[in-house]
Amino acid sequence: MAGSGGSKLGAFQYTKCKMDDYYAPGRNHLFVPGPVNIPEQVLRAMNRNNEDYRSPAIPAMTKVLLEDVKKIFKTITGTPFLIPTTGTGAWESALTNTLSPGDRIVSFLIGQFSLLWIDQMQRLNFNVDVIESDWGAGANLEVLGSKLAADTGHTIKAICIVHNETATGVTNNLAAVRKLLDHYQHPALFLVDGVSSICALDFRMDEWGVDVALTGSQKALSLPTGMGIVCASPKALEASKTSKSVKVFFDWKDYLKFYKMGTFWPYTPSIQLLYGLRTALDLLFEEGLDNVIERHSRLAKATRLAVEAWGLKNCTQKEEWFSDTVTAVVVPSYIDSSEIVRRGWKRYNLSLGLGLNKVAGKVFRIGHLGNLNELQLLGCLAGVEMILKDVGYPVKLGSGVAAACAFLQNTIPMIPSRI
Amino acid sequence: MAGSGGSKLGAFQYTKCKMDDYYAPGRNHLFVPGPVNIPEQVLRAMNRNNEDYRSPAIPAMTKVLLEDVKKIFKTITGTPFLIPTTGTGAWESALTNTLSPGDRIVSFLIGQFSLLWIDQMQRLNFNVDVIESDWGAGANLEVLGSKLAADTGHTIKAICIVHNETATGVTNNLAAVRKLLDHYQHPALFLVDGVSSICALDFRMDEWGVDVALTGSQKALSLPTGMGIVCASPKALEASKTSKSVKVFFDWKDYLKFYKMGTFWPYTPSIQLLYGLRTALDLLFEEGLDNVIERHSRLAKATRLAVEAWGLKNCTQKEEWFSDTVTAVVVPSYIDSSEIVRRGWKRYNLSLGLGLNKVAGKVFRIGHLGNLNELQLLGCLAGVEMILKDVGYPVKLGSGVAAACAFLQNTIPMIPSRI
Amino acid sequence: MAGSGGSKLGAFQYTKCKMDDYYAPGRNHLFVPGPVNIPEQVLRAMNRNNEDYRSPAIPAMTKVLLEDVKKIFKTITGTPFLIPTTGTGAWESALTNTLSPGDRIVSFLIGQFSLLWIDQMQRLNFNVDVIESDWGAGANLEVLGSKLAADTGHTIKAICIVHNETATGVTNNLAAVRKLLDHYQHPALFLVDGVSSICALDFRMDEWGVDVALTGSQKALSLPTGMGIVCASPKALEASKTSKSVKVFFDWKDYLKFYKMGTFWPYTPSIQLLYGLRTALDLLFEEGLDNVIERHSRLAKATRLAVEAWGLKNCTQKEEWFSDTVTAVVVPSYIDSSEIVRRGWKRYNLSLGLGLNKVAGKVFRIGHLGNLNELQLLGCLAGVEMILKDVGYPVKLGSGVAAACAFLQNTIPMIPSRI
Amino acid sequence: MAGSGGSKLGAFQYTKCKMDDYYAPGRNHLFVPGPVNIPEQVLRAMNRNNEDYRSPAIPAMTKVLLEDVKKIFKTITGTPFLIPTTGTGAWESALTNTLSPGDRIVSFLIGQFSLLWIDQMQRLNFNVDVIESDWGAGANLEVLGSKLAADTGHTIKAICIVHNETATGVTNNLAAVRKLLDHYQHPALFLVDGVSSICALDFRMDEWGVDVALTGSQKALSLPTGMGIVCASPKALEASKTSKSVKVFFDWKDYLKFYKMGTFWPYTPSIQLLYGLRTALDLLFEEGLDNVIERHSRLAKATRLAVEAWGLKNCTQKEEWFSDTVTAVVVPSYIDSSEIVRRGWKRYNLSLGLGLNKVAGKVFRIGHLGNLNELQLLGCLAGVEMILKDVGYPVKLGSGVAAACAFLQNTIPMIPSRI
Repeated sequence: MAGSGGSKLGAFQYTKCKMDDYYAPGRNHLFVPGPVNIPEQVLRAMNRNNEDYRSPAIPAMTKVLLEDVKKIFKTITGTPFLIPTTGTGAWESALTNTLSPGDRIVSFLIGQFSLLWIDQMQRLNFNVDVIESDWGAGANLEVLGSKLAADTGHTIKAICIVHNETATGVTNNLAAVRKLLDHYQHPALFLVDGVSSICALDFRMDEWGVDVALTGSQKALSLPTGMGIVCASPKALEASKTSKSVKVFFDWKDYLKFYKMGTFWPYTPSIQLLYGLRTALDLLFEEGLDNVIERHSRLAKATRLAVEAWGLKNCTQKEEWFSDTVTAVVVPSYIDSSEIVRRGWKRYNLSLGLGLNKVAGKVFRIGHLGNLNELQLLGCLAGVEMILKDVGYPVKLGSGVAAACAFLQNTIPMIPSRI
Repeated sequence: MAGSGGSKLGAFQYTKCKMDDYYAPGRNHLFVPGPVNIPEQVLRAMNRNNEDYRSPAIPAMTKVLLEDVKKIFKTITGTPFLIPTTGTGAWESALTNTLSPGDRIVSFLIGQFSLLWIDQMQRLNFNVDVIESDWGAGANLEVLGSKLAADTGHTIKAICIVHNETATGVTNNLAAVRKLLDHYQHPALFLVDGVSSICALDFRMDEWGVDVALTGSQKALSLPTGMGIVCASPKALEASKTSKSVKVFFDWKDYLKFYKMGTFWPYTPSIQLLYGLRTALDLLFEEGLDNVIERHSRLAKATRLAVEAWGLKNCTQKEEWFSDTVTAVVVPSYIDSSEIVRRGWKRYNLSLGLGLNKVAGKVFRIGHLGNLNELQLLGCLAGVEMILKDVGYPVKLGSGVAAACAFLQNTIPMIPSRI
Repeated sequence: MAGSGGSKLGAFQYTKCKMDDYYAPGRNHLFVPGPVNIPEQVLRAMNRNNEDYRSPAIPAMTKVLLEDVKKIFKTITGTPFLIPTTGTGAWESALTNTLSPGDRIVSFLIGQFSLLWIDQMQRLNFNVDVIESDWGAGANLEVLGSKLAADTGHTIKAICIVHNETATGVTNNLAAVRKLLDHYQHPALFLVDGVSSICALDFRMDEWGVDVALTGSQKALSLPTGMGIVCASPKALEASKTSKSVKVFFDWKDYLKFYKMGTFWPYTPSIQLLYGLRTALDLLFEEGLDNVIERHSRLAKATRLAVEAWGLKNCTQKEEWFSDTVTAVVVPSYIDSSEIVRRGWKRYNLSLGLGLNKVAGKVFRIGHLGNLNELQLLGCLAGVEMILKDVGYPVKLGSGVAAACAFLQNTIPMIPSRI
Repeated sequence: MAGSGGSKLGAFQYTKCKMDDYYAPGRNHLFVPGPVNIPEQVLRAMNRNNEDYRSPAIPAMTKVLLEDVKKIFKTITGTPFLIPTTGTGAWESALTNTLSPGDRIVSFLIGQFSLLWIDQMQRLNFNVDVIESDWGAGANLEVLGSKLAADTGHTIKAICIVHNETATGVTNNLAAVRKLLDHYQHPALFLVDGVSSICALDFRMDEWGVDVALTGSQKALSLPTGMGIVCASPKALEASKTSKSVKVFFDWKDYLKFYKMGTFWPYTPSIQLLYGLRTALDLLFEEGLDNVIERHSRLAKATRLAVEAWGLKNCTQKEEWFSDTVTAVVVPSYIDSSEIVRRGWKRYNLSLGLGLNKVAGKVFRIGHLGNLNELQLLGCLAGVEMILKDVGYPVKLGSGVAAACAFLQNTIPMIPSRI
């Protein structure tokens, strides 16, 4: 009989959905600066069984991938390695192949990821000459200049720099580093962590004379984690022949041996990541790498305008260092930035980046890299506004979105394939 | 040498990615009122090979599905049918199983979908007594009352009503219809199109004495198109025994025969949609059907507040008819609403609903139903603001988002699984 | 301490994996004659969110699909319809669009599916003139000849025939039917159920003057269930203009109206099935339709050789009727063929087809259609041998596989893409 | 007009399907000994977007995974590490964490993988004391006994052994190694490569006093490549505190630090592999680890019986060393085993393992590990028979399958979930 339906329904049993212990309706809004959103095209490409990697199919595919992946580094002369590892492994690969224990490295400490790389250098027994900046500032190139000037004996074997410090949203000027090296005619290797820059920021391996550049699959390439992509200049390859660092898994020699044989893999690659990379590159080239970079610039500018409209400070101290892949936002001292991140996850299904180490509790981060568009970002910005209000910051709701929209509405191009 | 890299790169060949003729970076923002966004959990569940539907597995699964699907209708006594068809087929199933050619049906014409259903009734040779309203108004229940009062001979065999008219964003009051039927002690069958309401709006089959209720998989259930879900009351089943309408594919008898046999399927079902439905129901029950309805109410209210802030009119004429699944927005006469939809797709990767038939060019529609959350909606609203500006409407950017956020920030609950 | 590990492990809790109530390791060996195995390429293509079907993308895709789908019917002049339904719905579409209630149809009853179609014809109020054969025999064309000869007044409006009777593994000779019609210059429509033949057996719509041909997505196209594909000749389209059968969902007129408008869809299609169909056609054309047909012929011949080697009888009475998509195997009277099917599922993760209706318990069926290769079939045949032994039939293990291999090893072509 | 249809069809254009350069119909029969077939359940679980690995969800999931993964090692006291790397990386992790450069290791050279591990040991500057056997023989434990007996000064720091040599199909007796160590009361660490054994062969970390055991995700776990799973005993952890080997990426200390913090990850894990591992473990536990091992034993025995029936020799010299995960088959000297592998791929869509290094051209390998069942294997065996005939070996077709079936039909259990 009508009316009694509702109450009886309570009697039905329901078993909770496995693997959804933290279920929330709708999309997760993923705005950590990595791992980033994977486009559907890539998910599709990776949705496949394993394959024999010694059949003709995988080497044929790998050969083209190695050629194509050079384009994201903007290199003609580089040699890429697709290593089943993470960014940390890619760092280790860059260092241990080109340098020997005790070698003097000049490196810049400007945030958590440069710190971790330096820690790695030290634990790998390199002699690290650290140039430290405030967290929020870029690499101190003046000090680098002095060191290069003083180093007439060429004791400095390598300059190591993080192109984009993900912890503070600081982008370093790589062209300026090259200029200094050229100015002092210094032969040091130029090693660049491009983890949160390559495929998103302007990066020119050949033009800037970068000797090793590296990135990870889960960043601007918008793939799952698991592939460290390292590219070596001829000079770096030459250096690798005399490196005395102990390594096997990360040894380029093994790769080069298999490149020569045409089988390409010293050990089993992830079949799925190879197909994923194929598709990720297809999407990048379809959009056009320069357009991808411009899109990142547009999204970043919109984010910064929102931050400004909220009356908050960018952790990045000067405009020249503004990062186009991540924005670290400083919160007032009476607010714990971790609470912002927690609240995003608990109330809005929004994933923001925590402040790390020195800036823990002081900044939260909005990652705006990878396969992402404007309306996704605007949803995130609207969410941040509500969170700010939740945690007691007197934001004017809509203000950040308005500022971002005012800029975006003037600058978003028509989608070329749809005109 | 450095510097020349860029130009040489132009020489690389690139083959366009198949099946992405309309590629755009980032997520498509799907805000048509169906088909709607499919959650990842459902995509995963459907990512599977075919199965023998005569093995014990599929009947066992179907049995539980049929029991569980009754919950979305809030019925204990109803009998559900999962038909491999669309909403249009579900309409035909409802009519041809319960009525005979020439039977008098009272039906309400209030927009495109009620129009199409009436057209179907007429072509199926029923005698349709149409009660017409302005597009934007709800069903005229006064006229229904008069007709029922006058129909002492019970020539009216059925009242057919669209619960939620998707073209104009109008929700009809089903409880009021039942009240009238009860008041006049009229035995007419009560057939309800719940295509854009069930699983999103409050719907109570048993309590409201609905005789046939139906929906489609691609609406609030957030599945692909392909399953028409029809639920029949005992009275409707009784009526089906004497219906003289000619049909085979849509004949409930065949289903009932197989239900009795315990094999459940008179013809091959989509294995994938069965698993998809299983998961869609799991997600609905996990969130709680009442919470799902509340979420839809919240998203709809936020949308209406944005429309108001933009200075635009809701196509729905009175608050009592406001739809919580779709909002039809009236544009000023100097703007072609189709241009808004086109621009959304061409510039913002945003899919909005066109104005249909009488309101073509005059309204555009924002669908806010299915597995969707607040930040997704806010991204859409920000997009609409930019589009409005694009087409020459003097909107204050951020105004709609601000209005929506002011409401949402006060009302969004914490995500229960994450507290 | 060593040794005690094993027993303590028993204490760990384990929660059963949801939705795998019937879990078995390894692939399910799916050899029912539909739904059939979906290739990974198709699963990938279908692994996607919904889309607005009114955007330019879906009509553009549909336009090409409609052109390409004609190739599987081998028609230039036909008009295809992609209907969100099953084979049963496709039957209804074929009949109700071309004929009027009371029209005389000549139809052949040779097994369960022809029986079901005839049942549909009768319930749709056509006047069915049934030509019955034994189950296991093909259509009796002599009787058809007599009827055509006698029908000087052209009261026969249509000849309906199942190209391949899935229940008994009988393939009818369509060219011979056409020859008879031509011989008697009879204008009857020629309607063909190609559900388990099209894309697998030789089928020539234009050459054989077929007026309506139809199939279902889950058969040789190797898609999920949910798309009925119907193709109408110009003569069938002409007939549809005067058909008095009552229908709306299945009405071709609605499709034709939307074809003209260039939007193609009278109601929401399954986005996923469209992309799936795109890929299924790509795969068919990649292999070459003639090669696909030859592959089916090869797999079928191998199956029949195995059956012979086992000392069992093919349900199909004469070689001219042997089906290349399904083989119905007669078991000795002391064995219940259902037990063979049950055992396949319970012990070997092998899905075979049951005997239906008149041949229930007497035959089991091996479906060998769709995206399938020789080694898959051989695994199935080996499985059948073990099952036969399980149920007490004195089969020589390996005998069927040996016979099949002897034939296949001589006939399998090299894979063209891998030479 | 009829008859001309066929020829005109040739005029239709067709664009080749991207990423299917080596397309063949039906399933690829993947019988290399890794990477192996991924079950659909795992593919589904991995079909997902990235997630913030610092949210509460991933640590919560990791915590349970680390507990559950111990079960596949049969350890209570071990500490597992899920490292984003391959088996080669897992080797490096095992060695560099527990040993210091110059440390004396006793290791067995019995095939390609033990060779590669020894090469790694040498390049990592360990002092490797190699005990060599013929390829096809197992570890020479007598020599080990002598060395242990002689080593009263305990200069041997570790015994390194490959549990299952994938190149020759040889399984070593780990319990016997432990017995020797215990007999001589030798404190050497006991490091085991379980890449092609764990989750497939009987493996008892605690009972056998294994100090480091390791496997890779793409082997018996049936996942994609990309996760090296290493498990350390308390003694190994203790040793790691004083190891002087240089490493960062592979350093357990970083993991242990994050374990303590409850965030678990020193760098970004693959979200997809975590969910994949969750499901892979669910499936293993659902079947029951002992049943999984028994299934591998059954499949292996069937394979060996087929090899015998073909009149071919197993590369493994003695029955005690027979591997239950891979069978290396010796071909007559007039046949090149590589041609067998090539032909499998080119004609039968069958992927077999090549002979490596010393046995290149002399053996081909059938991998029978992972989520696999009997009928899959029988399809493979039938394929091998045809290939053997193709290349000129006078095999009696069906003979191997018959021998395998005779054994399997007696031993395959009913599927527990389906009884």
